[in-house]
Amino acid sequence: MYNGAFLPSGSPMHTNHIKVRGYHLDVYQHVNNARYLEFLEESRWAFFEDYPLVEKIHGHNLAFVLVNININYRRPAFIQELLEIRTRVAKIGTKSCTIEQTMYLKDTDTLVADALVTFCVLDQATHQAVVIEGEVRELLEQMSL
Amino acid sequence: MYNGAFLPSGSPMHTNHIKVRGYHLDVYQHVNNARYLEFLEESRWAFFEDYPLVEKIHGHNLAFVLVNININYRRPAFIQELLEIRTRVAKIGTKSCTIEQTMYLKDTDTLVADALVTFCVLDQATHQAVVIEGEVRELLEQMSL
Amino acid sequence: MYNGAFLPSGSPMHTNHIKVRGYHLDVYQHVNNARYLEFLEESRWAFFEDYPLVEKIHGHNLAFVLVNININYRRPAFIQELLEIRTRVAKIGTKSCTIEQTMYLKDTDTLVADALVTFCVLDQATHQAVVIEGEVRELLEQMSL
Amino acid sequence: MYNGAFLPSGSPMHTNHIKVRGYHLDVYQHVNNARYLEFLEESRWAFFEDYPLVEKIHGHNLAFVLVNININYRRPAFIQELLEIRTRVAKIGTKSCTIEQTMYLKDTDTLVADALVTFCVLDQATHQAVVIEGEVRELLEQMSL
Repeated sequence: MYNGAFLPSGSPMHTNHIKVRGYHLDVYQHVNNARYLEFLEESRWAFFEDYPLVEKIHGHNLAFVLVNININYRRPAFIQELLEIRTRVAKIGTKSCTIEQTMYLKDTDTLVADALVTFCVLDQATHQAVVIEGEVRELLEQMSL
Repeated sequence: MYNGAFLPSGSPMHTNHIKVRGYHLDVYQHVNNARYLEFLEESRWAFFEDYPLVEKIHGHNLAFVLVNININYRRPAFIQELLEIRTRVAKIGTKSCTIEQTMYLKDTDTLVADALVTFCVLDQATHQAVVIEGEVRELLEQMSL
Repeated sequence: MYNGAFLPSGSPMHTNHIKVRGYHLDVYQHVNNARYLEFLEESRWAFFEDYPLVEKIHGHNLAFVLVNININYRRPAFIQELLEIRTRVAKIGTKSCTIEQTMYLKDTDTLVADALVTFCVLDQATHQAVVIEGEVRELLEQMSL
Repeated sequence: MYNGAFLPSGSPMHTNHIKVRGYHLDVYQHVNNARYLEFLEESRWAFFEDYPLVEKIHGHNLAFVLVNININYRRPAFIQELLEIRTRVAKIGTKSCTIEQTMYLKDTDTLVADALVTFCVLDQATHQAVVIEGEVRELLEQMSL
């Protein structure tokens, strides 16, 4: 199990809110485990949008490819609860990059879930993972400050 | 509300089975209304696969475009129930085609849901709906016998 | 197919916005037909929340039960598009109630989808549909003005 | 990232098949990352069904609570591909249990994804995690042989 070694709380990050609805729940009356991954994806798109990340990546004929998600389910989320999802670039490796996402009950310290989401950068012509460098690396570094 | 005028029960059709799982349910402990549409879509793909329908359509540079779904929710479906989805071509119009799908509790007369699903056939070059004719019409007619 | 006879445009209604993301799409690169029903459900919950509708219903030991959805798919929705979903109570019958929901590209007249969503009101003790009257009827009437 | 240390290939396991459909894909024309978790959940329910695991758990007034999913996305899955999901109990700890699930293209050695899924066993009266022992432990051990 991943033990979150979170970045300092002063670090910049993206914050997004999602309200739990009846259709997010499953037989246990909690948000279903797969639905959390949609909440995380929604929040990553919103984060990337604030930077020209997707455009920059595509402009270099590259693509992000998801290689791993490691998610801890800390506390069930119930109907009507308002979740705050915080997203940031946690680590930039040679050929991969890890996004950290934490999900809190809004205005509380109650952690609902946290996840590390790891991508490779793929050259769309060769379909090979490439070294993260140049403009793309600079942008990711800005997103992790 | 659509009042099902079902084809004679002797008509050919496609039959598919789906077991209700915990993640299909929502806050009401019934299968969620949107999930039924996935069950119907799953069953249509399986039906189309038995004929070379998709290949034939694409071979003529055409595409099916969904224009309407009219679904009656007759009785909630609960966890562990086994659903039988019956699918057939119900009506072939000039430029549209209607698929009828009914969902029963397997081995019973209990109707869970029924739907009419209407498509147009689109020319992928002009993006206009076209008259359903020739090979495509013949195939749809076979699928409605 | 349902031909929308929309209420006068001056009528009050609830408005909600959803941005189309990559995970809403399917093989056709359009929002998947089932996903629209989640967009509609999200918007209904947000509408109901603005009134104490759900609390009032439950307070009388009643429940809303979905009986029909009739949805027209007018124009595909693509990634990054911002949808405006407008929701109102369109018709209050003796034992059922119909919600009308229309989905536009925000700040345009481009209609993406429209739907009629019909509910019955069920007595949770007897599991029978009941006449919509008293406080519940009054509240629904307020929501349809 | 989890580096799969798979159990010997001779170990018993549960096998399930899912065909990739158009509605499983997203903007990248691959199965969406969240959808894999539904494929895994479907396969776990089918596995548990073959044993009286859920009944046994509930009979002791216990519940399984998901605490972590660690999933590697090894190779995108495309439309029409037939996936084989193999599921087994990989590890039984004092208070938690880990299920291993691997997803292959059927009849090939092509690994699409693999995941470790970790549960705690919760006493439904106290809402505390309890030691896995007695009948439940014996059953899990049978499922891991």
